[in-house]
Amino acid sequence: MKYFDLDLLKFLLFEVHGLDNLLKYPKYSEFDKDSILMFLDAAKDIADKEMYPYYQDCDKQPARYEDGGIKIHPQMDNIFRAITDSGFVGAHLAPEFGGMNMPHVIVGATGLIYCAANNHALAYLALTVGAANLITSFGTMAQVEEYVPHMLTSKWMGTMCLTEPEAGSSLGNMRTTATPVSDGSYNIKGQKIFISGGDHQFADNFVHMVLARIDGAPQGVKGISLFIVPKYRNTEDGSLEFNDVLTAGDYQKMGQKGYCTAHLMFGENDNCKGWLVGEENKGLKYMFQMMNQARLEVGLTAAAVSTAAYYHSLEYARERVQGQRLSQKGEKVTEQTQIVNHADVRRMLLMQRAVGIGSMALIIEAFKYYDLIGVTEGEEKENNFLMLDLLTPIAKAYPTEFGITSTSYGIQTLGGYGYTVDFLQEQFMRDIRITSIYEGTTTIQALDLLGRKVAAQNGKPLMLLMGILNESIAEAKRFDELIPFAEQLGKSIGTIQKTMEYLLPFAFQMQYEKFLKDATLFFEMMSHVIISWQWLKIGISAMKKEDAKYNDAFHKTNLLTMEYYFNYELPKILSLKEIITKDQNTTIPGDIDYLN
Amino acid sequence: MKYFDLDLLKFLLFEVHGLDNLLKYPKYSEFDKDSILMFLDAAKDIADKEMYPYYQDCDKQPARYEDGGIKIHPQMDNIFRAITDSGFVGAHLAPEFGGMNMPHVIVGATGLIYCAANNHALAYLALTVGAANLITSFGTMAQVEEYVPHMLTSKWMGTMCLTEPEAGSSLGNMRTTATPVSDGSYNIKGQKIFISGGDHQFADNFVHMVLARIDGAPQGVKGISLFIVPKYRNTEDGSLEFNDVLTAGDYQKMGQKGYCTAHLMFGENDNCKGWLVGEENKGLKYMFQMMNQARLEVGLTAAAVSTAAYYHSLEYARERVQGQRLSQKGEKVTEQTQIVNHADVRRMLLMQRAVGIGSMALIIEAFKYYDLIGVTEGEEKENNFLMLDLLTPIAKAYPTEFGITSTSYGIQTLGGYGYTVDFLQEQFMRDIRITSIYEGTTTIQALDLLGRKVAAQNGKPLMLLMGILNESIAEAKRFDELIPFAEQLGKSIGTIQKTMEYLLPFAFQMQYEKFLKDATLFFEMMSHVIISWQWLKIGISAMKKEDAKYNDAFHKTNLLTMEYYFNYELPKILSLKEIITKDQNTTIPGDIDYLN
Repeated sequence: MKYFDLDLLKFLLFEVHGLDNLLKYPKYSEFDKDSILMFLDAAKDIADKEMYPYYQDCDKQPARYEDGGIKIHPQMDNIFRAITDSGFVGAHLAPEFGGMNMPHVIVGATGLIYCAANNHALAYLALTVGAANLITSFGTMAQVEEYVPHMLTSKWMGTMCLTEPEAGSSLGNMRTTATPVSDGSYNIKGQKIFISGGDHQFADNFVHMVLARIDGAPQGVKGISLFIVPKYRNTEDGSLEFNDVLTAGDYQKMGQKGYCTAHLMFGENDNCKGWLVGEENKGLKYMFQMMNQARLEVGLTAAAVSTAAYYHSLEYARERVQGQRLSQKGEKVTEQTQIVNHADVRRMLLMQRAVGIGSMALIIEAFKYYDLIGVTEGEEKENNFLMLDLLTPIAKAYPTEFGITSTSYGIQTLGGYGYTVDFLQEQFMRDIRITSIYEGTTTIQALDLLGRKVAAQNGKPLMLLMGILNESIAEAKRFDELIPFAEQLGKSIGTIQKTMEYLLPFAFQMQYEKFLKDATLFFEMMSHVIISWQWLKIGISAMKKEDAKYNDAFHKTNLLTMEYYFNYELPKILSLKEIITKDQNTTIPGDIDYLN
Repeated sequence: MKYFDLDLLKFLLFEVHGLDNLLKYPKYSEFDKDSILMFLDAAKDIADKEMYPYYQDCDKQPARYEDGGIKIHPQMDNIFRAITDSGFVGAHLAPEFGGMNMPHVIVGATGLIYCAANNHALAYLALTVGAANLITSFGTMAQVEEYVPHMLTSKWMGTMCLTEPEAGSSLGNMRTTATPVSDGSYNIKGQKIFISGGDHQFADNFVHMVLARIDGAPQGVKGISLFIVPKYRNTEDGSLEFNDVLTAGDYQKMGQKGYCTAHLMFGENDNCKGWLVGEENKGLKYMFQMMNQARLEVGLTAAAVSTAAYYHSLEYARERVQGQRLSQKGEKVTEQTQIVNHADVRRMLLMQRAVGIGSMALIIEAFKYYDLIGVTEGEEKENNFLMLDLLTPIAKAYPTEFGITSTSYGIQTLGGYGYTVDFLQEQFMRDIRITSIYEGTTTIQALDLLGRKVAAQNGKPLMLLMGILNESIAEAKRFDELIPFAEQLGKSIGTIQKTMEYLLPFAFQMQYEKFLKDATLFFEMMSHVIISWQWLKIGISAMKKEDAKYNDAFHKTNLLTMEYYFNYELPKILSLKEIITKDQNTTIPGDIDYLN
C-alpha cells in the first residue's frame, strides 16, 4: 500500500524550497539535482523492501528486555545494514570526519521516506549520527578517531543520556556524578532512564553521550558536563572491556514498540569510565546541538507517520462505498458512493493531507536553514541561525501535536475497521503519540518559542520571520487565484503582532508566569500562520508549474489542500487570540492547590 | 488509585440536576434520596472490588476467538454476577417486566461508576438490557415471557446486530434476509460484523436483536424488520437446541480488549430461525430506541473514562516534582515544585476535568429528560422528547471526541511515563478511541444534529433549548460572580443563531450538501455552548452551597473549572462561526476526484 509520495517530496525540495539554489554553494559541489534524485530513489527502494513490509511486525514483536539485555526485531539488522550501505549514515559530515558534506535537507528528506515506511527503525541510526556529530563538533581529534569511524559503519551505535528519575524536563536537577581520576578519565555513577536505542543485540558497542555533574560543579544547568561513556571501553591492547554500563530494564510502550527504550545504570560496580567532551560545565550547551537536531527529527518522524496514515486512509476512502451523496437526496440512486465523496470524510482527509504535507514542508524549510548557516557568513549567517532557532520548536511540536489528531482522523475515516489491528491506522496513532513528548514536550517547546525564541534580541527573529512571510505574500499576489490567501496570511501576521503587544508587557514587568501561561496556545497560533505560509508557498509553485512532470491533478490537489488550510485551520487563530489576550489567571495556581 | 468521585456524582444528581424533583412523580414512589445514595454506594463498592482491580488485566488478556467461540476475561463472570445481584440489570423496567421503575438517570449514574472502574465490562450487561427493552417495548407478551426473565438474570445475554460488511453507516444497504416459514417464524440468513458482546463463555444463550429484510420488502431503510434470533432456540420439550448462529471470528482491537467484538453468521446451514418483533418493515424505527439509548451509553462510557484518566493524572501531577514555578524565576529556589503548579499542566488538568465532568453533567441531563418523558403528558412530554432528541447526538459525540483529546492530555501530563504500560493513561486513551465510532460516528451524530434535530419542526427544539438556557442564565445572574459567565453564554446563543441564519437558507433551497458539509463543526459549536451551560449550572450550585457536606475546596474547584471552560473552550465558537459561515466549497467534491 502507498505510504509515501516520492514525487511530492521532490516537488517540495526543488520546486517549493528551491533546493537548486542551495546546491550552488561550493560546499555542495559534489551534488547536483540528479545525484540527489537518485539518492532519494535508492532510499525509497530500501524503504519499500526492507522497512515497510516489517512495519506491522515490529509492533507485534516488540523490543523486550531479557537476560540483562534488550532484543529488538530481527529485521532491524537488515535495515541498519541496508541504510548504512546506502551511505546515509553521517553523509552530512565533512569529508575529514568520513562524510561527504551532504546537505542536511537531503538527510532530512531521506529520513521522511524511511520514517513513513517504518518509524521504529531509523531513530537508532539517527541517534548514532547525532552522537557522532557531538564528538566531531566538540570532541578532540583523538576522540573522533576512536569512536566516529565505528559509528559511521553503525557497528557501534550512539545514544543521548539526559533523563533521570528526578530530572526529566528539569535537567538542572540531574544527579549522575563524574569523579576525575588520574588517567584523565572520570568515574561515572548514576542512572539514566528512557534511553532510546540504549541497548540491543545488533551493535558491537554503544557510545553513550552522558550528561553528568563533575564533583563540586555549580548547582543547576550550569554544572552539567558532557561525557563519552561507551558500554565497552578500549584497552591498551586494542581489545574491548566492559565499562560497567548495565541495562537494568526496558519500558514497554503504547507504540513505537520496535524502538527500544532502556533503563541504564552507570558505575554500579564503580568501574564505569567516561571521557569529558569539550570543556567542563558546558555539557548542556553542547547537548543542545544534538537535541535541536533530534527535535527536528522527531517532528520529521511525526510528519512522516501522518502522511503514511493519510495515504492509507485515502486509499480506503476511495474504495469503500457507503451511502449516497447528500446532493443526491431524494433521487432514486441505488449505487452507493465512495466515502471520499462525503464532505465530512473529505474534510478529514484534507486535514490529514494539510497537516502531514504542511509539516513535511516546514521540516524541509528548517533543515534548509540548517544548511544555510553552514554556507553563509556575517549577518546572513546570523539571520539563518535565528530563523532555524525560531522554527525549531514549531517544526518539532506542530507535526507531533496535530499529527495525533491527524492519525486519529485516519482511524475515523475507516470507521470500526480503523480501530482493529487488521489495518495500520491504529498503529500509526499509537506510534505518533510519543512524538509530542520526546525531546521536550509540547509545553517545553512552547515555552522555548515564546519565552526564548520570539522575544530574543528585542524581537528580531519575529521581525525577520515576518519579513520572509511578506516576501512570500508579495510573490503570491502575482497570481490572481492566490490573492485572497495572501491577504489572509497578511492579516494573520497582524493577529500575531497584536497578541505579542498584549503579552510582551508582562515579560518587561518580569511577570513571567503571566507572560508564559498560554505559551502552548501561542505556539498553536504561530503554527497555523507558519503552516499557512508553507501552503501558500506550495500554492505558488502549483501556479508556476515549472516542472512539466507534475500534472494538473497534482497541482489541483495541492491548491485544494492550501484552500483547506486557509478555510479550516488558519481561522482558529481568531479564537486563540481571544483566549490569550483575555485578562484572566485561571491556570495560575493560587495560594492553595484546590484541584480535586 | 482514585478513578471516580462519588460525592461529585451525587452533587451533580441532587444539587445541579435537582433529582429530588424527579423523585416526586408517583412512578418513583419506591425511591427516595437515601435509597438512591445507598444504591450508588453499593455500586461503588462493586466497582472497587470486582472491576477496577482487573481493569489493566482485561487489556493484557484480551478476549480471543478460539475453537469456534470467544473467550473473555475470567473476571467478567464475577462482574456480571455482582452487578446482576445488585439489582441493576433491568431495574428501570416496569414491575410487570421484572423491573422496579428505577429512574434511567440513576441507571446512567451507576453506569458512570462502573465504566470509570472498567469500561470493558458493563457494556455486556447494557446491551442485554437494551435488547430486553426492545422486547418489552415492541414484542408480544409471549416473547417477553420467553426471553426477558432469562436476560434480567444475565444468564442469557443480548446484542444488537446491525452492521454488515457492506452496510455500516448506511444501514439501508443491509442484505440479511428473513424468509417466512409456516410456523410463524422466519428463516434468517446473513452475516453481521462488529457485534459487540456477540459471543463468550459466560452466557447460557444469546438473544440477538437482528435487523433483516423480509423477502419482497421495499428497498432501503423502509424494508428493514427486527427479529429476535437466539443462539439456542427453545424446543417444545423445554430444552434448547442450536439455532445455527455461528461465531465466525472476532476483531482484535486497539483498546477495549476485554469487550469482545464478534463476526456472526446466521443460517449458514439454513437452520436459523428468527421471530419478528412488532410489525414488518418497522425494524429500524424500533432499533433506534435501542440505538438512542446505546448512544447515551457510549457517551457515558467516554465521560467515565475521561474522568478516571483525569483523577489518575491529577494524582501524578500532585506528587511529581519537576522544575520551579515561573513566578520564582531568578530566585534561589532549590526545591522542585509539583508539576500541578505549572500553568500549562494546570491548563491540561482543567481541560480534562472540564471535559470529563461537563460530559457527566450532560449525560445526566439527557437521562433526566428520558425519565421526564415517561412521567409527563401532552406538550410537556413532547418538549421533553424534543430536548432528549436534541441532546442525544451531543451527549454521544462530545464526550467521545473531546475525551480523546482529554485522555491524550492525561498521557501528556505524565510525560514519558504516560506512554508506558506501567501507567493506565495509555490504556485510557486506547479504550476511549472507539467511542467516537460506536453507534454512529461523530459525522453521523453531527448530521443527525444539524440535519434532523436542530431544524425539526421549524426549529422548535432549538428554540426550546434556548429558552432553557436562558432560564439558567437568568438564575446565574442572581450571583455577582457568575454574571460575566452568564452574559458570555447569552452571547454565544446569538452566535449559534447567526450561524443558523447563514445555514438554513441552504436547507430551504434543498442544497443539502452545502447545508450539511460543516455539520461536524456545527456540532462542536453547539457542544461548547451546551457544556458551558452545564458548567454554569454547576457554578450556580457552587454558589448556592445548599448541602453543607461539600466543602469550600470542592466548590472552588468547580468554579475554577467553570471559569476554565468559559475562558478556554467556549471562545472556540468564534473561529467555528467564522469557518462555517464563509462561502466556500472546499470539501464538496467536484466533478472529478483529484485527491492524491
